[in-house]
Amino acid sequence: MYSIKALQDLFADTLSNQKFTGYPPELYDPVTYTLSLGGKRLRPVLLLAGCDLFGGDVQKAMFPAMGVEIFHNFTLLHDDIMDKAPLRRGKPTVYKKWNTNSAILSGDTMFALAYQQLLQCDHDILPDVLRVFTRTTIEVCEGQQLDMNFETRNDVSIADYVQMIRLKTAVLFACSLKIGAMVGGATAGESDLLYHFGENMGIAFQLQDDLLDVFSDQEKFGKKTGGDIAANKKTYLYLKALEMASGDMRDYLIQCYSNPSMDDAMKISQVMDIYTILHIHELTREKMNEYYHLALDNLDRIRVSPVRKEPLRAMMDEMMAREF
Amino acid sequence: MYSIKALQDLFADTLSNQKFTGYPPELYDPVTYTLSLGGKRLRPVLLLAGCDLFGGDVQKAMFPAMGVEIFHNFTLLHDDIMDKAPLRRGKPTVYKKWNTNSAILSGDTMFALAYQQLLQCDHDILPDVLRVFTRTTIEVCEGQQLDMNFETRNDVSIADYVQMIRLKTAVLFACSLKIGAMVGGATAGESDLLYHFGENMGIAFQLQDDLLDVFSDQEKFGKKTGGDIAANKKTYLYLKALEMASGDMRDYLIQCYSNPSMDDAMKISQVMDIYTILHIHELTREKMNEYYHLALDNLDRIRVSPVRKEPLRAMMDEMMAREF
Repeated sequence: MYSIKALQDLFADTLSNQKFTGYPPELYDPVTYTLSLGGKRLRPVLLLAGCDLFGGDVQKAMFPAMGVEIFHNFTLLHDDIMDKAPLRRGKPTVYKKWNTNSAILSGDTMFALAYQQLLQCDHDILPDVLRVFTRTTIEVCEGQQLDMNFETRNDVSIADYVQMIRLKTAVLFACSLKIGAMVGGATAGESDLLYHFGENMGIAFQLQDDLLDVFSDQEKFGKKTGGDIAANKKTYLYLKALEMASGDMRDYLIQCYSNPSMDDAMKISQVMDIYTILHIHELTREKMNEYYHLALDNLDRIRVSPVRKEPLRAMMDEMMAREF
Repeated sequence: MYSIKALQDLFADTLSNQKFTGYPPELYDPVTYTLSLGGKRLRPVLLLAGCDLFGGDVQKAMFPAMGVEIFHNFTLLHDDIMDKAPLRRGKPTVYKKWNTNSAILSGDTMFALAYQQLLQCDHDILPDVLRVFTRTTIEVCEGQQLDMNFETRNDVSIADYVQMIRLKTAVLFACSLKIGAMVGGATAGESDLLYHFGENMGIAFQLQDDLLDVFSDQEKFGKKTGGDIAANKKTYLYLKALEMASGDMRDYLIQCYSNPSMDDAMKISQVMDIYTILHIHELTREKMNEYYHLALDNLDRIRVSPVRKEPLRAMMDEMMAREF
């Protein structure tokens, strides 16, 4: 049995030994660059932990773990073009460092490279592994499209928002865990429970992300605090505030999000004040806790000794408590 | 046994009954639009013919046939962004009709939808089918990157060019035929021969495309004649002319391709004159014929009665004789 730290180290080792070189270099350099930018490697570690939960061979799970990490980084590469994001993990994004065409094409290549890793799974589980992976990749695209749609929609409900983050973020957590379970030899029922553990964990994770964007220590988080407010992102915090506020406060909140001439720093500070008055921090933590418990319910129902579940439980606790 | 016409009709029927709808519509509408624009459907028909060559069940081959057609259309969608092409088959391209973000994301979705089709192959051949498909998708990206690199390189050789079109165009022909052969129950050796048939056919096909761009009837071809010359594309015709020309003629040819202020109509007419003097039309047909015969050599070596090979041979002859 491995600790999360041991799995993180194992994955980091494997990744650093993997070469993504090929011809022409203009295609492969952005791939290498993207994968070397770091990140928390949550999805591959979840996959390895899902395999280890059932006593499976973690080395065999390394290929699909690499696959989900490459896929995740491919989505970041394309999302950064769509969101016009200049920086990713403090470094220039691919479309900024190279150009948009490079970012499109190297991204496409990464999507294929992800499949190349997944194809190294044992043949008996391969069809099921690729089916859940492929369905998930489609859902991630649907989530990204919903996210873009929400930018110009003024009727986004909290349920719409949760559905969007479920697709954009949570299903890849879920899929990673489920593939890990499959490699680990879990039954279909057990791997489904692990899927739902990951799905709820992913929603809680994204709510935490929304919270950190507003209430975190800028240096630890590595992004500008209030970025979501400046970008008029309809996060859980905003939608909840909209639900809770009334009268002038509600009007002012809507105005902050629809007035393009308002100064960013001013807007962030005003919206944060509204969030504080309405206890949005606490309400978001409450919602997170709902999903946290839904996740744990699913984990509890898996018929594996509690001690084997400790690493996943610890990982989830760490995610919930993280400050960046 | 099916004629090519029968396979084309079968595929067209299946495609027209297939719905690519889903939520949100902003993601799926461009997919439906792209797949309804028409086109020659060469790759799926090759796949079906490859299956039929070995007496396989053409209905079973319909899923991967749909997969390669969806993949091909995904590459067109992304290529049109990269090439800033306003029109595709006489209709606005996706990034023009919607926007670049839509074209990126709906394209990504199509890549996944292609896998979803391929995943419906029988499990015994699935790993091999997906392996050749995935390797091919990576090669197609490499080919597109080389094509973009060539725009700013002045040292492109004819060998470089052939390698580029092999990757960008020919390997998907080859892969389609090979997957068809696999579904049809061919041995590894036979499906490899069919792969090389398709690879050489694909190179001949692209040379024909280059030729038609310059020497075709504009109305039949559906594109502006001389578009490659206007865009300074280093096609086989240009590279061969560069090889054949000397002195002032060579200098003038290079000047035509490097002078951004030269009027398009003027440039096209001047370069065409040089092509005519140097017999580039005939020399390109000669090169095409080389690949045509290489293709047929591979087809001949497959141990199947000659009558079963007739549809593929007829399809190849038609491609070589096409005027658009």
